[in-house]
Formats: sequence, C-alpha cells, structure tokens
Amino acid sequence: MTKLQNDRFLRALMRQPVDVTPVWMMRQAGRYLPEYRATRAKAGSFMDLCRNAELACEVTIQPLERFPLDAAILFSDILTIPDAMGLGLTFNTGHGPQFERPVRSAADVKNLPIPDPEGELQYVMNAVRTIRKELDGRVPLIGFSGSPWTLATYMVEGGGTKEYGHIKGMMFDQPETLHQLLDKLAQSVTTYLNGQIAAGAQAVQIFDTWGGVLTPRDYQEFSLRYMQQIIDGLTREADGHTVPIILFTKGGGRWLDKMASTGADCLGVDWTIDLSDARKLAGDKVALQGNMDPCILYSNPERIREEVASVLASYGKGEGHVFNLGHGIHPTIDPENVAAFIEAVHELSAPYHNSQA
Amino acid sequence: MTKLQNDRFLRALMRQPVDVTPVWMMRQAGRYLPEYRATRAKAGSFMDLCRNAELACEVTIQPLERFPLDAAILFSDILTIPDAMGLGLTFNTGHGPQFERPVRSAADVKNLPIPDPEGELQYVMNAVRTIRKELDGRVPLIGFSGSPWTLATYMVEGGGTKEYGHIKGMMFDQPETLHQLLDKLAQSVTTYLNGQIAAGAQAVQIFDTWGGVLTPRDYQEFSLRYMQQIIDGLTREADGHTVPIILFTKGGGRWLDKMASTGADCLGVDWTIDLSDARKLAGDKVALQGNMDPCILYSNPERIREEVASVLASYGKGEGHVFNLGHGIHPTIDPENVAAFIEAVHELSAPYHNSQA
Repeated sequence: MTKLQNDRFLRALMRQPVDVTPVWMMRQAGRYLPEYRATRAKAGSFMDLCRNAELACEVTIQPLERFPLDAAILFSDILTIPDAMGLGLTFNTGHGPQFERPVRSAADVKNLPIPDPEGELQYVMNAVRTIRKELDGRVPLIGFSGSPWTLATYMVEGGGTKEYGHIKGMMFDQPETLHQLLDKLAQSVTTYLNGQIAAGAQAVQIFDTWGGVLTPRDYQEFSLRYMQQIIDGLTREADGHTVPIILFTKGGGRWLDKMASTGADCLGVDWTIDLSDARKLAGDKVALQGNMDPCILYSNPERIREEVASVLASYGKGEGHVFNLGHGIHPTIDPENVAAFIEAVHELSAPYHNSQA
Repeated sequence: MTKLQNDRFLRALMRQPVDVTPVWMMRQAGRYLPEYRATRAKAGSFMDLCRNAELACEVTIQPLERFPLDAAILFSDILTIPDAMGLGLTFNTGHGPQFERPVRSAADVKNLPIPDPEGELQYVMNAVRTIRKELDGRVPLIGFSGSPWTLATYMVEGGGTKEYGHIKGMMFDQPETLHQLLDKLAQSVTTYLNGQIAAGAQAVQIFDTWGGVLTPRDYQEFSLRYMQQIIDGLTREADGHTVPIILFTKGGGRWLDKMASTGADCLGVDWTIDLSDARKLAGDKVALQGNMDPCILYSNPERIREEVASVLASYGKGEGHVFNLGHGIHPTIDPENVAAFIEAVHELSAPYHNSQA
C-alpha cells in the first residue's frame, strides 16, 4: 500500500502529537455539494449509488477536492446490513427509509441471516477497495456501521420513528427477543467492519444514532453491551498499523465514562456537552471527536471562525482531539461556509499543539 | 373557593410531607382514551376543542374519572400564544402544527403583538375557570405554557422540525432579532400564565420541549434566561396559597443545577438521567417531577410495577417527588396499563414517606 501522506487523523485518534487539529465532517459527501447532487442524479436510486463502487468512490472523494479534509469516509448507507438480511429496504421521498418486512417477533429474529461481507455485502467491500486505491494515500479512509441498537430500531419500527413504540415495546415486553436480535446484529456488524478493514478501511466508526433515547440502565444493557461485543471482535491491526475505533452515541455525553471503558480509541461527542466536561468525564483513556453544532454553518464565515475558536478552547491544550460537527452536515449549507470552517480549524488549532510532527 | 380534598401534588411541589407520592401524566387527557376520541370527534378541529370551554373541561376531567390521579392539567395547545399573535396556525394530518406566516426577520418580530389573556386568549381563561369549578376541589389544576425558546422554534421554523435550521440559523446569524422575539414571548408567557393563575390555575408548568437541542452555553442564553424572566414576573400567591412553578426542559438533565437556581419550585426530568443523579445535581433547592420512560406503558402490568418500584427507589426516601412520565403518554397505550401504573405509584410509594399527612 502507498504511504499515507496525511496521518494527522490517525495520530490524533491514538492521542499522538500532531501539527494542527485534524478535521472531517459527518456526511461530508452529501447533498450540500452540487457535484454530489449531479452524481446522485445519474446513479438512479440512493441504493444504486451505494451499490456502484465507481460512483460511491466519486462522491466519497468530492469533498476532498474542495476542502483540505484530514479523512475520507466510505460513502454508504447505515442500513446495508438490514437490507442484506432481506427486510426489503426502500427510500420514499419525505418518509425516509422504510422496511417492507419489519421485525416484530422471536420467529422474525430467528429467520434473520448473518450477511456475508463478501457475499450480499460485497458491493460495500468493493467500494472500500476502489476508494482506497483512488485515495492513493492522500488521507486515511474511515469505514463505518450503525450500532446494533440503532439498526434494531429501524428494523423493528420498520423505518424512522419519533416515539420508539415498537422497539421499546419489544425491549420492555419481550427483552429476550430483542437480546437475540441485538446479538445477531453485533455478530453481523463485527463481520461487516472486519470485512471493511480487510478491504482497506484504516479506522472504523460505530454510529449509535439512537442510544441517547434510552435510560442510563437500558443504554448499558441494550446498546453499549453490544458495541462492546463488536469492539471485542474487531481486527485491531492491518498492514502493520493499528485500526482505531470511534464510538459515537448521539446524546450520549453523560455516558462517556462508560463508553471510554469499552476499549474504543475515540468517542464522538455532540454539542450538548462542552468538550472540557467531556474530557473530564472520559478521563485520559480516549481521544474525543466533535463537537460543533452543525447549525453554525448556517451563519457566516466570521461567526463560524469564532465558534471554531470556542470549540478548540473548550478541548484545550494537548493531543487527542479530532474536530468534527456534532452530527451530519445539513443539505442546505453553503459550501463556502464549509471552506471557512475547515480553514479555521487548521489555522486556529496550531497553538494547541507543541509538536514537530 | 372550595377546600382542596387532595393536596398531595401541591405539597410535594413544596417538598412538604405526603402520605404517598403524587402522580399525574403529561398528556393524560388524550388520544389513548376512547372517551377523549369521542369528544374530539364531536368538537370539530383540534383548536375547536381547545376553544370550547365546556369540551376542554370535559376532556380535562376524563382521566380523573378513570384513574386516581393527583392533579388535573388544563387541556389546551402549546401554540395558543403564536396563534393569538396571528401567525395562522393549522393542523394538517401527518404534518403536525404549521404556521402560514413563519417569523423570519426583524420586521416580522417587530410586528408581533403581545396577546391579551382576557382578549384573544380569553377562551383559555374560560377553560381554566370552567375546569376549576367543575373539579370542585377534587385535585389541583395545573396551568401551562410553552417556553419562549420552544414557541420561537415553532414560529421561526413554521412548524415542527428535526434539524432546527431556521431557528438556529437566526440564533447564529441574527442573534439580536432572536433575542427580541424571545423577550416578546417571555412577556407574553408571563401575562398568559398570570392570567391562568388569576382564573384559577393552582400550579403552572413551563414546557421547554426543545431546550435540549442547544449547547450548554446557548441553552443559558436563549432558553433558560427567558424562563428566568417569566419566573421573575409570575404571581406567586393566589387565594392565600403559593402557586408552585414547574420547569421542564426535555433533555435538560445535565443542566438541572442551573435550572434549580431560577426560583422554580420543581424541575421536570426525563428518563435519560437517573433521579438519584438528578437529585444530587439539583441540590436541595427544588422538587423533581418524573421520570418514567413512557414506553414502559407498552409492556404489561407486572413489568410496569417493577419499573415504578425502580423509579421510586432511584429518587429514594424523602419529600419532593412528583411521579410522572418523562414525556407525554403515547396515543396507542392501553388504558388498563395506565391503571396499573397509577395504582403501583400509590401502593409502592408509602414506605418512602414518614408522614402523618
């Protein structure tokens, strides 16, 4: 493999010295870019875009052509695993993702297969291989998956939800069934992420979008426990390098201490907690990734720069910070504001590092 | 006025001794009750139901006929104030509330009137008077309002939102405009709640549904500050009794210390924080209201009883706990499960109180 030209992101994840704070954005390959919308239009459906390795590679790299980002992230969907399990995924305009056959009973769970990364999910591995080759060592490539709890929520609800009635109904009324589902998903995610690592992903992130809607007790039992199972089963080295793991529970700021004990290298943090508090809570065990409110990007370059300064100051001196938004970038953001954001992170962060890196 | 026959709720809000823990449910008058659906059907639109004092009274009292609840809450909508400001409120099936004329500029804000409680909002005051008379001292009546931040979010977005692009865009790009809007709303809410108190509300709750989507800094500047302004302006006594104030920021568990310093008597807490931690954070200044996950009610009486026991144990011994769900009851809950819930609170809580009350 080609030598990595920019390893700031991987170094920060391992809390090693860097010259400036590395930065990337969740959903950096996305609708706010006109070139993404053009590729998306020629691909057909959203899943057609995910399934086409060349086009998935194209959109993955688009934001790197515009902005000096320090990492690329595989373009794919969070629901590839349930899709490969045969639940019938569709995307209906205005309704988000929907499953034709939601999972509601022990029998439904029993019938679910564990998808083969080089079988039904080979299109994802092909995308990883294609992107990695095309990146040619420019920046590291992040692989990812949804967390078992988050995937289960979509699968049991049959799509997005605001009330979580079906999934929590199962949690409180048939906990054993849900545990079986979560165990099967943890096995599937482990295999899936190990497949991505074998295909070339240099770091992986687990997105626990909905762990934050649980009580502290239920979060540990139904979400964190299965992310722990995944972490315990992941390949931790590839090509002689460590493959860092990032754990991101949206709304999970108050549980960073528990998350830090899983063996993850880095915790994603949203904007509802200050990084200074997050750092205290997580202790010295992990790096932190975050946490600017994505809505700042609706304002103007000057205000954005101010906010970047404030987030950097909140983390403070020392290594182990990856700058990111606290959630995905919104589709109507002006790319000019993104340029100002990325520039500000690199320019303003140098004083926080003492390194000769 | 008739003497109150059951004052547990008011006593608990003031951290005075009670025999058992009082309990009520957010949205206790609502769609999960067939009798509510029947009244709703004969009323016409949702706002017609709110505007008809007799029918609003009928649905307010319905849950008390079924369950030994310790408080009644005014049946009304959270958006009465923006509606009275002339924004053109409609409820479209599947889309929730929408405003024909969202607030987007300094000029829009300048043109907004401060509604008169005994003018455009007299229908709410009439409902309070009618309910209070009909209750005849059975349990206390809670009045309520949305918080300025929550009302502003609806008004600027023009309805519900998942991304908060317009309101946060204003917050970051035109903060002065937003401050003017929030100040006007704080004045309006103060007048509105004082009107409800004059009409007979014996406690008031401020619902800050969306304060939890802010950073800690922005929560203080754009939400808490204006709730403080309201609290400072509220009538604190009526008929020779204190009128307690409940402050509820959904997702605000991590800011209970700040909320406890406002002078509110009680803080609402959702299920994402343990009551034991909430109690430590809030200190000895306030009572706490909450915090069972409303989804527990999808399970079964035995599991519900178990969870009630767990929430009671989490608060522990001592006064100052009002049992509630951490959010409104969902529309598809079986009323039999609600009966089991209310019964369990009264039965299992006696050992936590030493009182002869």
